[in-house]
Amino acid sequence: MPLFRWLRLASRDVVRDRWVRLRADCVEIAPGRIIDPYYVLEENAWVHAVAFDAADRLLLVRQYRYGAGVFTWELPGGNVDPGEDLLAAAQRELTEETGAVAATWREIGSWYANPARQDNRIHGFLAADARIVAAPELDATEAIESRWFTPAEVEAAIADGTFGNVMHLALYHRALLARAQPGPRAGG
Amino acid sequence: MPLFRWLRLASRDVVRDRWVRLRADCVEIAPGRIIDPYYVLEENAWVHAVAFDAADRLLLVRQYRYGAGVFTWELPGGNVDPGEDLLAAAQRELTEETGAVAATWREIGSWYANPARQDNRIHGFLAADARIVAAPELDATEAIESRWFTPAEVEAAIADGTFGNVMHLALYHRALLARAQPGPRAGG
Repeated sequence: MPLFRWLRLASRDVVRDRWVRLRADCVEIAPGRIIDPYYVLEENAWVHAVAFDAADRLLLVRQYRYGAGVFTWELPGGNVDPGEDLLAAAQRELTEETGAVAATWREIGSWYANPARQDNRIHGFLAADARIVAAPELDATEAIESRWFTPAEVEAAIADGTFGNVMHLALYHRALLARAQPGPRAGG
Repeated sequence: MPLFRWLRLASRDVVRDRWVRLRADCVEIAPGRIIDPYYVLEENAWVHAVAFDAADRLLLVRQYRYGAGVFTWELPGGNVDPGEDLLAAAQRELTEETGAVAATWREIGSWYANPARQDNRIHGFLAADARIVAAPELDATEAIESRWFTPAEVEAAIADGTFGNVMHLALYHRALLARAQPGPRAGG
């Protein structure tokens, strides 16, 4: 079957609330060939900070992740608010979750979070010379702790799965490559 | 708020069919603090092959990804069948999608696909000396093409976003590290 850009013939909302936007579409995947329903999750853009301090340590956050039923170390970050600048969102999330700020920021790149099922991209930013200047600003539903990891500690946490989010693992490796190359600062 | 392992107080199915298993749980996220609903997608394990040929070229597959509305190059792979061995699943998916087999296989590692929302892990396998020996075995809903990418072509496709799935990007980078280190073969 040759490649074909699927056509949406109809669409209905299965769930649309504050937490989840799930659509069920009727889709033509090839001339005359229909899938109904095909489910799509509509998501905000996600943004994450790969923040190193002056001693090359990486700042990670730990929280309970109910979907998988585990505590994981992950990159600081989260949802981009509607209309919000991506870099501003990364800076906001870093400060809210950890109390850190960073002297210089660079865009790492963006890729699809799960393009078969979701419509959003995950955007990575490299933050250099980060330091903690305040207490985190967490809302009532957030329980997050943070700490600095040496490069060897990051690698150990990747190997044992406690740095457990595969999407964040990609941003970390792209950040290592970006650090090894000169590049423009983000945000002018 | 200190870290707390969330408790499931109740659970109902929002969708449970061949394509999607979405639960809405009533969850205690801290003593006396409730979120209802909290949505969880139940997923099969996912498995992917990072398959290089003898000339260090990487085998990628291209298909239409309706969630994001794009054609993307990705690693061959897919769902693990219930009870199926992970390595066997990676080998099956590689052959079905591309017609390739590989002489040696190694486990790269596994991480959570999206631990806040989903319960599954994505497992990567490094395949060496891969070669195409047959036609792909695609079902009626699959339209997939494949080709070999040189290392420079992979990097270009990452940079321009056409190698567009962030989860696969992580497995690719972990495979590059695994190739640089001696390690045991998978599957005895």
